[in-house]
Amino acid sequence: MEHKILNNINSPDDVKKLNKTEINLLCDEIRSEIIDVVSKNGGHLASSLGVVELTVALHRVFSSPSDAIIFDVGHQSYAHKLLTGRQDRFNTLRQEGGISGFMRPDESEHDPFVTGHSSNSISAAYGIYKAKTLSGQGGTAIAVIGDGAMTGGMAYEALNNAGAKKSNFIVVLNDNKMSISRNVGAMPRAFTKMRNRKGYHKMKFAVSTLLLKIPFIGKPIHNFVFWIKESLKSIVYKNNIFTSLGFNYLGPVDGHDTEAMERLFSIAKAYNRPTLVHVVTTKGKGYLHAENQPKDYHGVSSFDIIKGKDASKSKTYSDVAGEALCELAANNKKVCAITAAMTEGTGLTDFAVKYKSRFFDVGIAEQHAVTYAAGLASGGMIPYFAVYSTFLQRGYDQVLHDAAIANVPIKLLVDRAGIVGDDGESHQGVFDVAYLSTIPNVNIYSPCYYSELKNLIADTADKTELSVIRYPRGAEKSNFDGEISGDYTVFSQNGEKVIVTYGRIFSNAVDAGKSLENTDIIKLNKVYPVEEEIVEMLLKYKEIYFFEEGILSGGIAEHIGSRLLQKCYSGKYSVYAIGNEFVGASTIQSALKKYKLDTESIIEIVGK
Amino acid sequence: MEHKILNNINSPDDVKKLNKTEINLLCDEIRSEIIDVVSKNGGHLASSLGVVELTVALHRVFSSPSDAIIFDVGHQSYAHKLLTGRQDRFNTLRQEGGISGFMRPDESEHDPFVTGHSSNSISAAYGIYKAKTLSGQGGTAIAVIGDGAMTGGMAYEALNNAGAKKSNFIVVLNDNKMSISRNVGAMPRAFTKMRNRKGYHKMKFAVSTLLLKIPFIGKPIHNFVFWIKESLKSIVYKNNIFTSLGFNYLGPVDGHDTEAMERLFSIAKAYNRPTLVHVVTTKGKGYLHAENQPKDYHGVSSFDIIKGKDASKSKTYSDVAGEALCELAANNKKVCAITAAMTEGTGLTDFAVKYKSRFFDVGIAEQHAVTYAAGLASGGMIPYFAVYSTFLQRGYDQVLHDAAIANVPIKLLVDRAGIVGDDGESHQGVFDVAYLSTIPNVNIYSPCYYSELKNLIADTADKTELSVIRYPRGAEKSNFDGEISGDYTVFSQNGEKVIVTYGRIFSNAVDAGKSLENTDIIKLNKVYPVEEEIVEMLLKYKEIYFFEEGILSGGIAEHIGSRLLQKCYSGKYSVYAIGNEFVGASTIQSALKKYKLDTESIIEIVGK
Repeated sequence: MEHKILNNINSPDDVKKLNKTEINLLCDEIRSEIIDVVSKNGGHLASSLGVVELTVALHRVFSSPSDAIIFDVGHQSYAHKLLTGRQDRFNTLRQEGGISGFMRPDESEHDPFVTGHSSNSISAAYGIYKAKTLSGQGGTAIAVIGDGAMTGGMAYEALNNAGAKKSNFIVVLNDNKMSISRNVGAMPRAFTKMRNRKGYHKMKFAVSTLLLKIPFIGKPIHNFVFWIKESLKSIVYKNNIFTSLGFNYLGPVDGHDTEAMERLFSIAKAYNRPTLVHVVTTKGKGYLHAENQPKDYHGVSSFDIIKGKDASKSKTYSDVAGEALCELAANNKKVCAITAAMTEGTGLTDFAVKYKSRFFDVGIAEQHAVTYAAGLASGGMIPYFAVYSTFLQRGYDQVLHDAAIANVPIKLLVDRAGIVGDDGESHQGVFDVAYLSTIPNVNIYSPCYYSELKNLIADTADKTELSVIRYPRGAEKSNFDGEISGDYTVFSQNGEKVIVTYGRIFSNAVDAGKSLENTDIIKLNKVYPVEEEIVEMLLKYKEIYFFEEGILSGGIAEHIGSRLLQKCYSGKYSVYAIGNEFVGASTIQSALKKYKLDTESIIEIVGK
Repeated sequence: MEHKILNNINSPDDVKKLNKTEINLLCDEIRSEIIDVVSKNGGHLASSLGVVELTVALHRVFSSPSDAIIFDVGHQSYAHKLLTGRQDRFNTLRQEGGISGFMRPDESEHDPFVTGHSSNSISAAYGIYKAKTLSGQGGTAIAVIGDGAMTGGMAYEALNNAGAKKSNFIVVLNDNKMSISRNVGAMPRAFTKMRNRKGYHKMKFAVSTLLLKIPFIGKPIHNFVFWIKESLKSIVYKNNIFTSLGFNYLGPVDGHDTEAMERLFSIAKAYNRPTLVHVVTTKGKGYLHAENQPKDYHGVSSFDIIKGKDASKSKTYSDVAGEALCELAANNKKVCAITAAMTEGTGLTDFAVKYKSRFFDVGIAEQHAVTYAAGLASGGMIPYFAVYSTFLQRGYDQVLHDAAIANVPIKLLVDRAGIVGDDGESHQGVFDVAYLSTIPNVNIYSPCYYSELKNLIADTADKTELSVIRYPRGAEKSNFDGEISGDYTVFSQNGEKVIVTYGRIFSNAVDAGKSLENTDIIKLNKVYPVEEEIVEMLLKYKEIYFFEEGILSGGIAEHIGSRLLQKCYSGKYSVYAIGNEFVGASTIQSALKKYKLDTESIIEIVGK
């Protein structure tokens, strides 16, 4: 799109030169550009629209890249990308080879750190800040983190480490009163209290204004102002969680008032104490549909700008999992569901309403979620924790230590398992089978079809073992009528070749099978542990082709391969999996093709 | 030992029957029993001695197991074990088949959850509390957590989840003013402030005493007392981090005054709001050596009770790693060292003194430590994070997401890699190779000898890749003079058999080799990725024996086995690793023997 101001912003320096009218116009243009591109490519809309003024204010006060700015999660970094030399490519957002939907250091020097997972920005920014200090580079670092991400324990570990030390390290709390959906836990209440301290807010501004009128802030004056502020603070608003952790606290400030934010950022920059600036923003700001239904406009597919999102939505594995859990909960009062701030994403919206007392949104806190589940199960309940594969990585130790050692029968519903598409490297669910199968006492199931997923959820309820059910993003390819049950299913034509696979790739194998002769298919319903009879069965084939939608190293193909070799298998063993690399953004289909996991590749490989 | 009171305590009910004199005597007897057994078997002394009165007070107010008591980490649960029917076996502490040094549900119904790793107790206890409530079982749950463990983010995730809800869920903060060594970060300062609020403390006691004089606490009176307390709180000590998170705060109280603690616990039990009781204890209490040098008496080997610990100490891999880092730091100002509250355990004591500005103890915060390291590295520094293998499990996602995706060259020094001995299941370092090798861009080295470890630490400094150097607990077995360098080392006698191994097991292979004919040895210096030439080289052997001190599933033996099979290897492939189970407490040597990784087993297996 053509934009009068935005098109002339080639670097953050250009943002600093604008006058007030131009700034307002720039913000409008950024919004319209974001809405335009996201309506075509899909992406994270509401959170990006919420931080337009905040981003502009940051770039006016700080100097990226010598001041490092890290947006936590990074899905709200679109305005930042537009202001840091990437507007000409912004229309390639989230496309293969295009601009990432998150921060990526290989994309720009203005993206100092990989983002995607929540709550890591303070740790990363503080590390970068320390490196700047130790090496004498100068400059500071700023972590911009949402109130939702503040529920992740990692953020506290970082605040505790950075607090109470001399530095001008800065954390910006982007308080939009919700993370992905409504925020949970005690912290948001604390934030609400802080937001409502109007008196303090006004007094603070008076001091800030005074400060800005002094052309040169010498040390004595700085100290005096500091003293006034400290006194004010203790009188008017006492302590809060950030001051307890040794941070100076500034705010709350209107996150759509660039001038007000610039004032506070300037003060924070001049301090010799770590400072948290509390900024209050409106998610979806400037696009009415998104302002009204921010959670519906968190992550979106392409949509019509005038009409807004199409409310209709085709069924997904997540929906089926949610339905199955509701059915289970109706008949079994012990069944609970847990989410880490992903109620809708994991299909639990209905469960949350129908079984309120047994539904737990614990915040962006996967570690706690796993152990909380283990506590519930230790007390006799049947907890299902529904979580994206990529985010369960945060709970690896908890699955191992808090659940598996004592064989506590928690149930993990691992959503978005496999390739996820346009979110790219930071969100791929290709590691879960490899990392979970390192843990004794874990049982991993990988359904391909909705019916199978439903049955597995029902079946695992009574099992006294730790069960993982993993399923992909999106919808099933319904191409099979047969019964799938037990640990594995064999489709035998008495062939000499066999395709071994699990999860969604089985449906590709079924399609491929129609064009292949002399070829059997074995579907691993239970992926791990692999029963001895499966290995025995494989020994009779002349050629084994293993197709695995997951990382090669530590995957099931390696596991079975090693066991076959120990049993002196002497046929041909071919493995197609995700070679040891990170999978970038693309369509799911394109990635499956790249890794030879699509129907055509299977036909070509096995048929030749 | 014979104890007048303790020997008659068969269950917590018996503790409730004692009078004041008997309680004091009981505490003395518990201390002498703990000192006696730990002086023989080794164990965690200082922390156990610190919580004797606390444990007695808990068992007098609450009724385990219907009230679930979870001691965070669990290394301070010795008194709890003595009071819950395990005193007759307590002399088997930390021995093979004996009483665990941590809480183990399979040991007693009074151990409601596995403990060992830090900061998970609030999550687990809150899950158990919720299960009790939902199922109508009654009873509550109490998490006893140290100030050190409070630096772990998981504890905050749980406080945030449990706070601001109606419940009589209880957290006891065992504030001993240090965790394993001196505490770090902003939080301990906050605790110190709280401890020093004497005025509030005294007023609180007055109210508590008043409360206890009322025989039946009706709801109106309860509410009145509650109101008084709330008012007191806001007047006298304002807010703290726990009240911010929606917890009622009681204390601080002297952790060696059972009556005072009983009063507060009774109040907490009667509340309908989650409550944190702040208990101040002295680590090592009652044993002068330990009181004076609590960190030296955190975890100990056997010692002379009168003389105290022998200060002399033989050299370990940890010491060598620390020395190597010091040498490196002397010549390279970019070298930094990070620990997660394990300065001494990881051999960094000297580094911490000599290179203070480049040394970072971040608290029990492995997640933050990894990402902070990635931040430092992104800013051009060369950070080494020294961490026990078992605790790095907490940082799996951070290694993958925050370091590996952008190929940030952090260095991980993975200490206690392999079997660790008497700490048992929760502390074994047998998973790191399996879980780290699922991550693209990670390079894993596994030295066997001190010289090799030193060289690796020096060599990785300049490497622009993510490097992991893993080494075992204890001391090297120095039995080899040759040069070890490069990705692998071959000891060839032109044999038809080959032993493949890495890490400390190589020294067993060397010893075994002296008795074996026709057998070569290949040591993987770089364990992962496995270079193609190693696989090619193996193809020529008739028999391959892989000895791996790590979990089988996802380990390197499986990885290489699968690759050999894909290359149509047709010889014999035998793998000896840790079958997919958790390794219990025993001596290291006994466990190595069990898994056929000792010299004699290697001779027997390969020689036959």
